[in-house]
Amino acid sequence: MSSALTFGHSPFMRFLGLEVVRADKGIIEVRLPFREEFIRHDGSDWLHGGVVSALADIVGDYAVVTETGQGVPTIDLRVDYLRPARRGDLLAVGRTLRVGRTVSVADVEIRDSSGTLVAVGRAVYASPRPRGPETAG
Amino acid sequence: MSSALTFGHSPFMRFLGLEVVRADKGIIEVRLPFREEFIRHDGSDWLHGGVVSALADIVGDYAVVTETGQGVPTIDLRVDYLRPARRGDLLAVGRTLRVGRTVSVADVEIRDSSGTLVAVGRAVYASPRPRGPETAG
Amino acid sequence: MSSALTFGHSPFMRFLGLEVVRADKGIIEVRLPFREEFIRHDGSDWLHGGVVSALADIVGDYAVVTETGQGVPTIDLRVDYLRPARRGDLLAVGRTLRVGRTVSVADVEIRDSSGTLVAVGRAVYASPRPRGPETAG
Amino acid sequence: MSSALTFGHSPFMRFLGLEVVRADKGIIEVRLPFREEFIRHDGSDWLHGGVVSALADIVGDYAVVTETGQGVPTIDLRVDYLRPARRGDLLAVGRTLRVGRTVSVADVEIRDSSGTLVAVGRAVYASPRPRGPETAG
Repeated sequence: MSSALTFGHSPFMRFLGLEVVRADKGIIEVRLPFREEFIRHDGSDWLHGGVVSALADIVGDYAVVTETGQGVPTIDLRVDYLRPARRGDLLAVGRTLRVGRTVSVADVEIRDSSGTLVAVGRAVYASPRPRGPETAG
Repeated sequence: MSSALTFGHSPFMRFLGLEVVRADKGIIEVRLPFREEFIRHDGSDWLHGGVVSALADIVGDYAVVTETGQGVPTIDLRVDYLRPARRGDLLAVGRTLRVGRTVSVADVEIRDSSGTLVAVGRAVYASPRPRGPETAG
Repeated sequence: MSSALTFGHSPFMRFLGLEVVRADKGIIEVRLPFREEFIRHDGSDWLHGGVVSALADIVGDYAVVTETGQGVPTIDLRVDYLRPARRGDLLAVGRTLRVGRTVSVADVEIRDSSGTLVAVGRAVYASPRPRGPETAG
Repeated sequence: MSSALTFGHSPFMRFLGLEVVRADKGIIEVRLPFREEFIRHDGSDWLHGGVVSALADIVGDYAVVTETGQGVPTIDLRVDYLRPARRGDLLAVGRTLRVGRTVSVADVEIRDSSGTLVAVGRAVYASPRPRGPETAG
């Protein structure tokens, strides 16, 4: 697995606690271990949607990284919340739909610990350029 | 300000540290104070995009709450990252575009501490119903 | 095939010339026969993106109709244009991701006559209610 | 007004019958004169959503053209249908949110002939490059 496919360099991803389960060209599977801070409101069994959208953004990005070898800025992200995500780990699978010279597109499916599909994400990422400053996402 | 317009009941929103700056019917302004955990990668001056998308989701939701008086599940969310968000507080303004019987639509603008527009969000929320279980978002 | 799964009642769909190829619970395949009016600009071999987005909207809607038996208003639509669509028929497959009491979500894949995946769509539709006026989409 | 801001070169835009009302750097206003082919179903007073989404795509594109001077491929488009569009002309205003080296982002508001805001669009477009083939949208 490429060293690009790790999360230890990022304070936000360390906070989330992400773990790569599996990665191949064009596909990546990531686990988000449960933390109490992810709960929507006290006494609830549901995770907050913001956790789900952050996971979708990151896993789509890393699906692109499996092909390009480097992190890429997100241009835009859509998340559809299909069902509430129950307390427990989340498992996300990201797949590239297209890796182009200008932009790449990836799809993400997120399941909760019961295996229920709780959200789908679709995002566009800027393709890496030889040199140049970090620009978005 | 309605007691519905607070964040203290939510572990995830407490982690984020959100503060309501101003709220009126159809509009809300929320500050996200900076935390080191929001940084994209060690040594970077940029916030992670997942922080921005979570903020967009929540602030759109609370814009709807200013009209409906209760939290509503997110159906879907789009975030466009226009520019990188620099280290520092984020300020988000949410506005309702439509509050309907079935769904509501809200727009969010997010600026970093330099006043730069760093992202825009648009989201659809389920409208509250008299009774019924929590269903998404 | 349900009589709801026809396009003859709609001036816009007659203009487009849509044909249902196949329909089952949760899935529908629709052909859009080529017309010169669909070309992007004179002398081009590419279809206009507006044709593609209209097709995505309609086919997602009809995927939902395979489950609900009646047309439903579109709440929002996202279309990602992956590659240009060449002159010729388009073939679209729509699948429901979720059919709920309030809203339904559908995915659409659109291929051109060479079999190339040219666009993907994702849309949310209002679920039918027992009575009530037409409201959107 | 730049010669790039015309629609006469495009079979699909001629079918639609689009007219530029006003254009300035970063903003464009476009009228879509009513045609019977735009109606949703026979006997209805509502326009089809596909007409609205095509209009959103085109007007966002032309908002970018007011800054870049040339047509640009759509990368992705979101349309939110707020209210049904009544029989009659549509008026769309497109504004650029960002014009960048890689991509541009534009917002579109669409009103029907009664002045009602019926839909909003947000789209990302590839920025023009010095040379290179037509690639999407």
